[in-house]
Parts: sequence; structure tokens; C-alpha cells
Amino acid sequence: MEAIMLELNELEYLHNAAVCVDRLGKIVAVETDCNQQKAIETVYTRLGWSLDNVSVTLARAGQFFFPGFVDTHIHASQYPNVGVFGKSTLLDWLNKYTFPMEASLSSLPKAHRVYTRCIRQTLAHGTTTAAYYATIDVNATNLLADLCYSMGQRAFVGRVCMDHLGPEYYIDESPDQALAATRATIEHIRGLDSGFEIVSPILTPRFAPACSAETMRGLSELQKQTQLPMQTHISENANEIELVKELFPDSKSYANVYDTYGILNEKMILAHAVHLTEEEADLIAERKTKVAHCPVSNSALSSGVARVRWLLEKGIQVGLGTDVSGGYSPSILEAARQAKLVSNHLAMPGGRSDNLPQEERDKSKLSVDEVLYLATKGGAQVVGLADKIGAFQVGMQWDAQLVDLGAVPAEVAEDDFTIDGSVDIFGWEEWDECIAKWVFNGDSRNTKKVWVQGRLVHQQT
Amino acid sequence: MEAIMLELNELEYLHNAAVCVDRLGKIVAVETDCNQQKAIETVYTRLGWSLDNVSVTLARAGQFFFPGFVDTHIHASQYPNVGVFGKSTLLDWLNKYTFPMEASLSSLPKAHRVYTRCIRQTLAHGTTTAAYYATIDVNATNLLADLCYSMGQRAFVGRVCMDHLGPEYYIDESPDQALAATRATIEHIRGLDSGFEIVSPILTPRFAPACSAETMRGLSELQKQTQLPMQTHISENANEIELVKELFPDSKSYANVYDTYGILNEKMILAHAVHLTEEEADLIAERKTKVAHCPVSNSALSSGVARVRWLLEKGIQVGLGTDVSGGYSPSILEAARQAKLVSNHLAMPGGRSDNLPQEERDKSKLSVDEVLYLATKGGAQVVGLADKIGAFQVGMQWDAQLVDLGAVPAEVAEDDFTIDGSVDIFGWEEWDECIAKWVFNGDSRNTKKVWVQGRLVHQQT
Repeated sequence: MEAIMLELNELEYLHNAAVCVDRLGKIVAVETDCNQQKAIETVYTRLGWSLDNVSVTLARAGQFFFPGFVDTHIHASQYPNVGVFGKSTLLDWLNKYTFPMEASLSSLPKAHRVYTRCIRQTLAHGTTTAAYYATIDVNATNLLADLCYSMGQRAFVGRVCMDHLGPEYYIDESPDQALAATRATIEHIRGLDSGFEIVSPILTPRFAPACSAETMRGLSELQKQTQLPMQTHISENANEIELVKELFPDSKSYANVYDTYGILNEKMILAHAVHLTEEEADLIAERKTKVAHCPVSNSALSSGVARVRWLLEKGIQVGLGTDVSGGYSPSILEAARQAKLVSNHLAMPGGRSDNLPQEERDKSKLSVDEVLYLATKGGAQVVGLADKIGAFQVGMQWDAQLVDLGAVPAEVAEDDFTIDGSVDIFGWEEWDECIAKWVFNGDSRNTKKVWVQGRLVHQQT
Repeated sequence: MEAIMLELNELEYLHNAAVCVDRLGKIVAVETDCNQQKAIETVYTRLGWSLDNVSVTLARAGQFFFPGFVDTHIHASQYPNVGVFGKSTLLDWLNKYTFPMEASLSSLPKAHRVYTRCIRQTLAHGTTTAAYYATIDVNATNLLADLCYSMGQRAFVGRVCMDHLGPEYYIDESPDQALAATRATIEHIRGLDSGFEIVSPILTPRFAPACSAETMRGLSELQKQTQLPMQTHISENANEIELVKELFPDSKSYANVYDTYGILNEKMILAHAVHLTEEEADLIAERKTKVAHCPVSNSALSSGVARVRWLLEKGIQVGLGTDVSGGYSPSILEAARQAKLVSNHLAMPGGRSDNLPQEERDKSKLSVDEVLYLATKGGAQVVGLADKIGAFQVGMQWDAQLVDLGAVPAEVAEDDFTIDGSVDIFGWEEWDECIAKWVFNGDSRNTKKVWVQGRLVHQQT
């Protein structure tokens, strides 16, 4: 096989390697410089495997295995609205498009349709793990968990807590009700997947303006009891930040609001983090809190550009989020592409860092390797699964995608060559150039098969 | 049929309309509020058509006809490098990736392979007209023209003039040689398509730093003799602008250099125009010179963000360019999407216009309708074909694409629904929301058929 691994600054290519996965989906051997015959003769023997019980998937010419993508921030309940936002920005977009759609999913047949398609599209785009926001509705949230489990996508499923400032037709009645409803979804998921192996609950205060102090305090308590992860939004949009200042006049900052209520900790995923101050970023780093970078959404809603290099240099762990449907795409590959492009925007003349010398500005730019790292290992860190997913190492899970850039038709007359996707490989490219072509022009056509914990959860028909 | 037309601020939908195209590819009737039976009974009779000689293409549910895209700036010779630029910006990118690739296409078998794939991919993405840069090589440039003609893509094909500052291995020897070589390709194309109906030559000084004064003057003369269009680059990158200042110390500005040599006129297409001064933009408007906006390239090479609204308000006609391979994508739909996103960047806090009030900044944002206008009618204006292409009106050419967003599986159980592309239509969307979904998540899978001048030049297999 050809497998590709990565560190923040460098892709590691495992050419001619065998990765052996057991029945439970765990990687039990990684043998480099290996072909099928050698694997059978040496690795199978060592593992005590017999040929009859092993199923083999080979990467053909032009194909390679890549760790599954981790989407650290996605609203499954907004999936039907992808691409639909007109000229709105965050706060009017919430009221015009988002709340009505979310509220409508209390209809379970509609929720079934929306969530099925969302999971199917994200799997088709290579997302093996997703941190989902559902809605405030318990039954529909439980349904999302059921569907993730049955379709085999590793998922964190969060019932949205919002008992403040929401529209009348879509709001939790009280802190007590919000917490009880949240506990109900936790118990449902425990019944489905007792060890939270594939599907886990995640505590989900929508964002500070939508949560009463009591609800945030209650969620902090619940987290102490359950040790569950938590997710929310921070510092996405200028008007939102103003609103937080008005609502929490005693807090030093937006990050400080969450800190005050005890939920700024290493189990918290903060989406966006576009306009953090130096002090906020330092606090987030100190608390070991994670960041979901959502460049597609931040550009689509004109929110701004998060300074990923700056966050990373502070030691903050960062992953990528599609932020469907603030983001228009269910694809983490698209999020990676846009992460690269918006990081370039930070370096441009006329941009945010215009007062810095060009050399300093250029440091903002993320490389192809770096954005792929954020899409996989970075994401695994953010969702607390860095020991299980995001790479191909013994003891980790086989959460992977088979990527196909197209066989190079060296022997095929150009006139007989048919188009299968937007990536065009000519045959003279280096591996890193092939990867760059995938990042910039790839789409779900290139993702032929997807596995989660060893289970084949998507293949192209 | 469902056909979609557009003005700068508004899409026009022709529901239940018949568009009749004659054998020469010309639209001879557009009948709204019409079905097939009515078309046969009234329009065919009026046109004197008999049923036996008419071929009918219907848009099924979920499909619509859209004007073919116009790519106002694309380097066919750089196509194999799409997505490959590492961390480079314009000037080092030229030396590291671009010049070696272009030079290598003096090998005609290689040029045949590269140009065939480029034309095939751009057709598959709905590009019915392209303004191409080839290379300095006469034979390879002629080959590109031959291939466009035989594959049926409307094209402007430019032999690149560069007799200054280029690398030793890739440079015109002298102004005389540059002009003679250009004349040779013009004569070749005249032999191929005497009226320049499908393929036309276009005069192509690479950019001011790469052209001697004598060459620019010579091209100006040649343009006066031939009335051919011309294309070049302007004000893409800060270092490039500095270089122009050094090379032309007597010129008031970059735009002024072209003006001095008589080539800033209504037949000139200027690519990029990212960092124009107020004075330059006014001069360009006065000369009725056109602009090819290339947002994908400008973000990928960290060049900057062109202020399209500002250009339009000065009365400058603007189209979109992929700028392959400074741009990573052969798709004008991707260029439209990025045109929308980069226009949002102009409105962001921390961006170029940070000193303006938010309301002023928000004016920079382009709508979905507006970027689709740039992709079609705007492009048609830029290449001087506004009377022939870019819309469905009697007397214009049938340059069109059949777009399919997927039949809405209202009656299909969600579990049996298969994925065909990244656009997901649920059935409750308004037309403008379907179009937005196409712009944000569409790709070549949605472009089922493509026609140029009535000839079917692409269909999905």
C-alpha cells in the first residue's frame, strides 16, 4: 500500500507498506518495505493470522490511504441550508435561516431525512469523525446519534442548550429543563453505545449569549460528573463580541465568561476564535482548551480570518471544522483548502498585518502539509482522540480513506482518456505535488472507500 | 425548458420556455410560457421548421440551461501545474514552476497532451469561451488553436510575447522575432477559421516587465492593422509593481506604461488589477479597457484582493478568469465562488477597508447573482462578444450548459438515495437557493452537457 502520515510540518509517506487491522478495527502491525507476499510470510505469521481469514485492500497505482478527516465543528441540523446565506452575517443569519431550520427538525421524519443525508455526504467526503451540534429537541438529537451509530460514523452528538435570547419558538424553557433534556440524550446514547466507542454525547452550550449563567454552571457540574467533552462558539463576529460585552459587563473578555463558569478547560472545543485578544489566547492556552478553525464559514459570513499560526505558536491545539451551514461545504478537504487560502490573506498587502514587514506576515501562511495535519491529527487532538485516530500507528484505530487521484494513462491515448474528477495527474509529478493537486482540486470523487474502526462505511458505487 | 439569464443584480428565470437554435448555432426564437406541444404548433410554424428536422433537448426536473462560462484569463500551457505552487508568490513562482513548464511545451507531443486535457477539463466545467495564453512557441500555439477548433471550444489563442528579462532558455530573441512569430500564429489561425468565428488570435504581450518598448509598439501597430484583441497582466503583486517602477521610471503608473505604447484601449484585457491606484482605474475606465478578475489565483499566490465593486462603479467591464495555474482550478464556477468570498474579505474587520464604516465596507460584497453575471455576461463583454454570447436572446449564439442539481427524490426512500455530486437539493428550496447551492457546492458533475454555437462539445458519459 501507499499510506500517508503527517506531522505538522511534514507529510510522511509509507510506500510499499502493510498495515494490518484486527477484527475490532485496531491497527496491530505496520510493516514498511513490504509487499503482499512478504506480509503473508512474516507479518501474518507473527500475528498468528491465517490467510483464509484476512481480507486485503490494496492501493492501486494513483491511490493511497490517508487518515480519515475529523470535522471538529458541524451543525448537522443546518445541513439543508449549505450555500444559502444571502448577504447576511452571523446574527441576522441565525434568525433568518438557522433557527427556523433547526426548529423544524422536531419533525422526526424531516430530521431523519436531513441527518441521513448529512452523514452520507460527510462520509463520502472522508469525514470519519464529526463533532455535531443537533438541535434543542431530545428525540431528534437521539435520532442523530442512532443514525451515526448505524451508519458507522464516529461522532460526538450534542443537544444544543439555549435558554436565553433565542426566538420564542425555539428556546429551552429554563436551565432545569435544558439540563434535564441534555441528561436524557446522554442516557439515550449510553444505551446505544455504552462505552461511547463510536458515538459519544458532547455537552453543547450554544454560545454565551444564548445561555443563562445557571445553565453554564449546570453544564460545568454535569461535566465534572460525567467527564464528557463540551463544545461552544467564541469570538466569531464583531457584533456577537459586542453583545457578549453587554450581557456580561463584569467579564474581562469573551473567553473569561466561559472561564468564570468553569467550562474553559481541556475538554472544551471552541469554534471560530477569529477575534481573540492576546490575553484571551493566553488564557485558552493555559486552560489547554481546543480550537475548531472554520475558514469556509468565516469567509462566507464575512466574520474575519482566524490567526492559526499565532494560536499554534501559543501551544493551542487546532483542528478544522466545516461549520455547516455557516460554512457552505460538508467537506473537510474544502476546509483545508480554505484554511490555506485565508492564511495567505493574512500575509497580503492591505490585510490585517499590513504594519508588519513582509517576512513576518509570510509566517502566517499555512502549507499544504500543515492544513492536512489540522484536518486529521490536529482534529484528533481537538476531540480528545489523539491516541486513537489521525494516524496509522500500532494500537490506533483504522479510521481511513482510500484516495484515488486517477491512474496515470501513460499508455492510453489522450483522446481515449475519460475524465473522472477534477484532479489531473500527468505522471511526472512528485508525491507532494500529487497531494497538493488533491488538496486544491480534489472532491468526493477521489474518496473511493472510507473505514471507521475497520468497518467499511462508504464506497463509491 | 428552464433557462436562467442574468443582469448584474438579478437573475432572470425563464421557466417553461422554448429556445430555438438553427443549424448554425444561432438562437432564432425564445418563447416563454411554452411547452413542447405549443412550441411545435406555434413557433415551428412561424420559423418554417418541420418536426423531422428538429432535435429537442429538454431540461428535466432539477435541471436548467445556463449560459456557458467565459474564462477571460487562462494559461493553457500551465495547466499541468494546477495546485502546485508551494509557498511562492508571483515572481519566484514564475521562475520555479511556470517558465520551465511553458518551455517544455515546445515538444509537440507533450503540448498535445497538456492542451487536450486543459480543453477537455474546461469544457467539462462549462467553459464555452476561453482567452488562452499559450507559450512563445509558434507550433505549439498553433496546435492549441487547432485543438480548440476541433474540440469546439470558442477560444482566443495568444502566442506569448516576451523578449525581455525572461530566462535564457525561454525568451523571444528580439522584437522583430517576437512580432514575426506572432504574425505566423495569426496566419495559421486565419487558415483554420478565416472569419475567426470559433478561434481567434489574440495579441499577448506577457506583461510590461517582459516586453521591450519596441515589442509593445510593434504590437500596437499590429493591432491597428488587424483589429485583433489583446491581453496582458497588470498590478498583480507588490514586487511586480516595484519592478515596473524601476523599469519604466518615466511612467506615471503601471497602467500608464501600456497607455504610452498605445495598447491601453477597448480591445485590451487586463488580468488581475489588484493594486490599481485611483488614477489608474480612472484611466482604464476612460480607455474602456477590460479587466479579468482572478480571485482564485490572487488568493493562492497571496497577491491581494481586487476591488471589483470599485471597478464596476467606475464603469469598467469585468469578467472572471481562472488564471490557471496561478489559480489552482480550471473551473469558472470556482472562480465565481472565490469572487464572492474575496469580496467578503474586503468587508471584514481587520481588512483593507478597516477605516471605513461597516455599511460602506459591506458594499464591497458581491452577491451570487453578481458573480454569475461576471462569469457569463461580464466575461462576454470583456472578450468583446457581448452581442453573441452570455445570454439567451434571439440573434445570439447557443453557447450553453445543461446544469443538473439532481432530481429531488421526493418519492425515494432516503436510504435508497445515491449521491451524485456535492449539491443536495431537498425539494423545498426556492430557485435562487438552488442556484446558491450550485455556486457554493457545484462542480463538473453538475454540468451534464455543453454546447458551443449549437454544437454539443461535452456530455457526461
